[in-house]
Amino acid sequence: MEYPYSFEELVECFKLLPGIGKKGAERMVYHVLSMDEDQVKRLSDALINLKKNMKYCQKCGHICEDELCDICKDTSRDQSTICIVESPRDVFAMEKLKEYNGLYHVIHGTVSIMDGKTIEDLNVMSLFDRIDENVKEVIIATNPTREGETTSLFLARLLSQYDISISRIANGLPMGSNLEYADELTLLKSLEGRKKL
Amino acid sequence: MEYPYSFEELVECFKLLPGIGKKGAERMVYHVLSMDEDQVKRLSDALINLKKNMKYCQKCGHICEDELCDICKDTSRDQSTICIVESPRDVFAMEKLKEYNGLYHVIHGTVSIMDGKTIEDLNVMSLFDRIDENVKEVIIATNPTREGETTSLFLARLLSQYDISISRIANGLPMGSNLEYADELTLLKSLEGRKKL
Repeated sequence: MEYPYSFEELVECFKLLPGIGKKGAERMVYHVLSMDEDQVKRLSDALINLKKNMKYCQKCGHICEDELCDICKDTSRDQSTICIVESPRDVFAMEKLKEYNGLYHVIHGTVSIMDGKTIEDLNVMSLFDRIDENVKEVIIATNPTREGETTSLFLARLLSQYDISISRIANGLPMGSNLEYADELTLLKSLEGRKKL
Repeated sequence: MEYPYSFEELVECFKLLPGIGKKGAERMVYHVLSMDEDQVKRLSDALINLKKNMKYCQKCGHICEDELCDICKDTSRDQSTICIVESPRDVFAMEKLKEYNGLYHVIHGTVSIMDGKTIEDLNVMSLFDRIDENVKEVIIATNPTREGETTSLFLARLLSQYDISISRIANGLPMGSNLEYADELTLLKSLEGRKKL
C-alpha cells in the first residue's frame, strides 16, 4: 500500500536532509501530522526566512543577517589576526572556546580534485584584499583531512608573498585519547609536533 | 557567540521533530543553507500541503486525501473483518504483510490514565456504527503495551454486545529471538498462548 501523495512528498523532502533515512523521514511526517497548524506554519516559514534573511558577511564570508557579521563589526576584537576556516560552523566551534579574539575568514569549502574545485573557487580573493599593514598573523584552521591539508598548503604558498606570520593549527592526539588506539598518521603528527617542556 | 535569528529559529523548529537534537538540528540548518531556493520552497510547501490535504477517512479513521481511504473504497476486500489499530502507521505495517485483506479501524491512540485519556476520547463510537450484519470478526491489534492491553480489554467488553467473533493478535517470542533473553512477561505470554501441534 502506498502513502497518500502529500505524505510521500514530505517523506521525500525530509530524506534530502542529512542523517535522515526513510524510516526517520516517515516518523517525522507522522509527527508533522499531529502538530498544530500554527507549528507547521512556523517551521515552513522558518525555512523560507532562513534562505531569505541569511547572507554572507561581505568582509569575512561568515553567515549573518546584515552586510557585516557581528565579529567583523566588533571593533574590540584583535584586528591583527585572521583565522581561516572552511565553514561557518567552524567559526561557531572556535567561538565556543571563548579563547580566540581575532577575526575570521570563511573560505567555504576546500580544494578538491575529486569535485574539480580549485583554490579560485573558494572565498580566497577577498582574503588578500583584507591583508594590509594592520594584519600581523594568519592562522590556517582548515580541517586536518586530506582536502583541508591540501588547501592549507595552497593558502600558505599564496600568503607567503605578504610580510605576515602564517601558522597552522596543531595536529596530534586528542585529549583523553590513548596512544594505543591512535591511527599512525595522528601519532606521527603528534611526535613531529612535540614541544620542549 | 549566538546564531543569527533566522538560523536559531529554524534550529528550534527542527528540534520539535522526533529524534532530532540540537546537534542534528544545527546540521540540518547548515544543509538547508546550502540547498537551492527551489528545494527549500519544495520542503516548505510540502509541509503546508500535508496539513492542508491530509484528512482522516470518514469511515475508518486512516489517513487519506479523499473522504474515504483506498482500503475502504476497495470493494474487493473482505468486508466482514475489521482490524482495530492504534494509528495509521500500524495500517501501513499490516498492509506491508500483504496477508490481511479485511478492513481497518484506526482509533488514534490508547486509553491512558497518565494522560487522562478515556475510551470516549478515541475514535471508537464510529466503530460501533460500522458493525452491522455483514461484520463477522473484529481483530483487536492495539500494541502489546500496558496502554494497548488496557484499551484492548475496554474494546473487547464494549464489543461483547454484538454477535461477532472478537480476537486479539498473539503475544509471544518474536521470531529469531532467544528464550534466554526474553523478558518474563513475554515468556509467560508465549507459554500461555501455546498451540497444539
